[in-house]
Amino acid sequence: MNFKKRLMTPGPTDIPPSVLAEACKPIIHHRTPQFRKILTEVVAGLKRVFQTNNDLLIFPAAGTGGMESAVVNLCSPGDTILTASCGNFGNRWTAIAKAYGISVEHYEVEWGGESDPQEIKKRLAAHPEIKVVFTTLSETSTGVDLDISAIGNIVAQTPAVLVVDAISGMGATPMKTDEWKADVVIAGAQKGFMIPPGLAGVTISSRAWELAKTSKIPKYYFSWEKAHKAMTAEALANTPYTPSVSLIMQMAESLRLIEEEGMENIWKRHARMAQSVRSAMEALGLKLFATGRPSNVVTSVCVPEGVDGIKLFKTVRDTYGITLAGGQGKLKDRIFRVGHLGYADDWDVVAAVAAIERALNEQGYVMEIGAGVTAAEKVLFAAE
Amino acid sequence: MNFKKRLMTPGPTDIPPSVLAEACKPIIHHRTPQFRKILTEVVAGLKRVFQTNNDLLIFPAAGTGGMESAVVNLCSPGDTILTASCGNFGNRWTAIAKAYGISVEHYEVEWGGESDPQEIKKRLAAHPEIKVVFTTLSETSTGVDLDISAIGNIVAQTPAVLVVDAISGMGATPMKTDEWKADVVIAGAQKGFMIPPGLAGVTISSRAWELAKTSKIPKYYFSWEKAHKAMTAEALANTPYTPSVSLIMQMAESLRLIEEEGMENIWKRHARMAQSVRSAMEALGLKLFATGRPSNVVTSVCVPEGVDGIKLFKTVRDTYGITLAGGQGKLKDRIFRVGHLGYADDWDVVAAVAAIERALNEQGYVMEIGAGVTAAEKVLFAAE
Repeated sequence: MNFKKRLMTPGPTDIPPSVLAEACKPIIHHRTPQFRKILTEVVAGLKRVFQTNNDLLIFPAAGTGGMESAVVNLCSPGDTILTASCGNFGNRWTAIAKAYGISVEHYEVEWGGESDPQEIKKRLAAHPEIKVVFTTLSETSTGVDLDISAIGNIVAQTPAVLVVDAISGMGATPMKTDEWKADVVIAGAQKGFMIPPGLAGVTISSRAWELAKTSKIPKYYFSWEKAHKAMTAEALANTPYTPSVSLIMQMAESLRLIEEEGMENIWKRHARMAQSVRSAMEALGLKLFATGRPSNVVTSVCVPEGVDGIKLFKTVRDTYGITLAGGQGKLKDRIFRVGHLGYADDWDVVAAVAAIERALNEQGYVMEIGAGVTAAEKVLFAAE
Repeated sequence: MNFKKRLMTPGPTDIPPSVLAEACKPIIHHRTPQFRKILTEVVAGLKRVFQTNNDLLIFPAAGTGGMESAVVNLCSPGDTILTASCGNFGNRWTAIAKAYGISVEHYEVEWGGESDPQEIKKRLAAHPEIKVVFTTLSETSTGVDLDISAIGNIVAQTPAVLVVDAISGMGATPMKTDEWKADVVIAGAQKGFMIPPGLAGVTISSRAWELAKTSKIPKYYFSWEKAHKAMTAEALANTPYTPSVSLIMQMAESLRLIEEEGMENIWKRHARMAQSVRSAMEALGLKLFATGRPSNVVTSVCVPEGVDGIKLFKTVRDTYGITLAGGQGKLKDRIFRVGHLGYADDWDVVAAVAAIERALNEQGYVMEIGAGVTAAEKVLFAAE
């Protein structure tokens, strides 16, 4: 071993040892009081992280499955919806909706930028037929966090329902579901929750349930009604088909860690790590890609002239053990992304900055060695 | 500890220690050569277990998600399909199809019995508009295995496509996908594959792909085309969204164990365990529920008069550590089910029989103590 392996991507994140250990326990059957107790605790714990009193369902699926569930349970063919997109994951809403024959008012800003709540207000006024607004808490393809609080206040003044993909942001950056009036919020497992991928959590407000009653898209696997009925049936905390038992056991342990640290502290840690990475990159003369509100989850950095971005990414990963994320789609060789999410601390950030410095230096990029880590430290030491 | 915990249900099954240990390894990112290598190996290994050269896709979902994928990719609203059902899981095909506006020719035998291939032939002849036949390899709600070979030969002589839910049978009892002309076969994770639930494997023949081209049901998450495109894209062995990384790592280890034992030996082990449980139950004077071909996966046993079936099940589980399965739906207190599936061996079967004997004895059921385990041993010792 030359270098330990570190995952500094916007998910999956590294998994805490006690959460890994949970997966080593013998599996239990899902139709038992023992499992129902765990599932009940997990639902209660997730509601605290989501900051909601709304119903919460868990699907055995990737986060995208949770997104699909929102589309097929809320919409009907021919409906009009609004997508407020800042990148690849915002665009996924439009792709899913179109697959289901829904008419999409697609509002997409220049990548790197941030959806303007006032523009959403304008479009909702111009198109009163819009039934649902779909958006993203943390657009990881560009490294931008959206102002869900502002969007929530605007949408709540209309009859439309607000759906937020908080897959990568939940448990890392504030997402106050009820306070911000987000009707449906979706989270994944492998991000702020620090467990392996395979679970999607979905909360549903009473407004969303009302709309769901009118939905005419056929569904079975992702039916909210079926899942909710099983959860609240006579044999409480059931599921309509086999749940992902081991992941739910891991989620229970992860929620214990989250409660121990406290949501406020977790948000502060992510904000601090994000700010220190941004400061470090700028101290190295690199340009940040985000022009909108920079993300607390992942920082996108422009590849400077004369540097091979793909090679940089591979050197950091294959030689120095730290997996960053490359650019997605049209940003493939133009940016690299540094995740500071989930099971990551201040010193992981310093390590990532050091590895990036080294790989840049090897490509002959002109900079002052140590400038990045120095800037990172200054932010970390000064943070409350 | 008085008694170790043993899972003797038709899934989840106990997990081999080396497969559990796999889940303790640090997680890896899914967009890496390292993960693509594992995924490629897993797909190849699964094809060997499925005994197929057809395309194989893996969805992050419960087995039911794999079933839904077959309905939404093969059918169009208004199509007619045939369901050959022997119980709860056969009926699930009808429920999913109806949810999607499909017209169902529902052929259901008295529970405990077995679908008659000749009846399927008759119905296909009477309804030439049937596009797909949906059936089940191992109907775990009643403990009956279907004759897929015979059904496959019949369906292959018609233009209809054959879809087999092999979720609980695959990797336990023979399922020769290509030889038996099964166009689409679905398997789960927590059954013969001995890993935690959360993966669905689906194979697709060229006949099925042809039909899928005409499908008009909207889909996104379960789109075969999207999943197949990602698997065969430039960056090979990719997935359209985040795969269940940890479960796929566990599947890789499980496939190593399966190859080591060999499919023929695994099938023999399951047949032997099943036969010994049946023999033991009969030696105790209990009646087997299955009137059709009894399953190699799970044995369903009628609760005898004077015995409280729910209490029996709970005593065996809570006092003696062995989790059996109760009856489902209308069979709730009428039968109990003994799983002999996945990570289970001859001595687990003897242990389960002994615990059942003890619980029966405690309820004052008249029998010769030791008759069950003696009968079980005789079968086990005599087996080749």
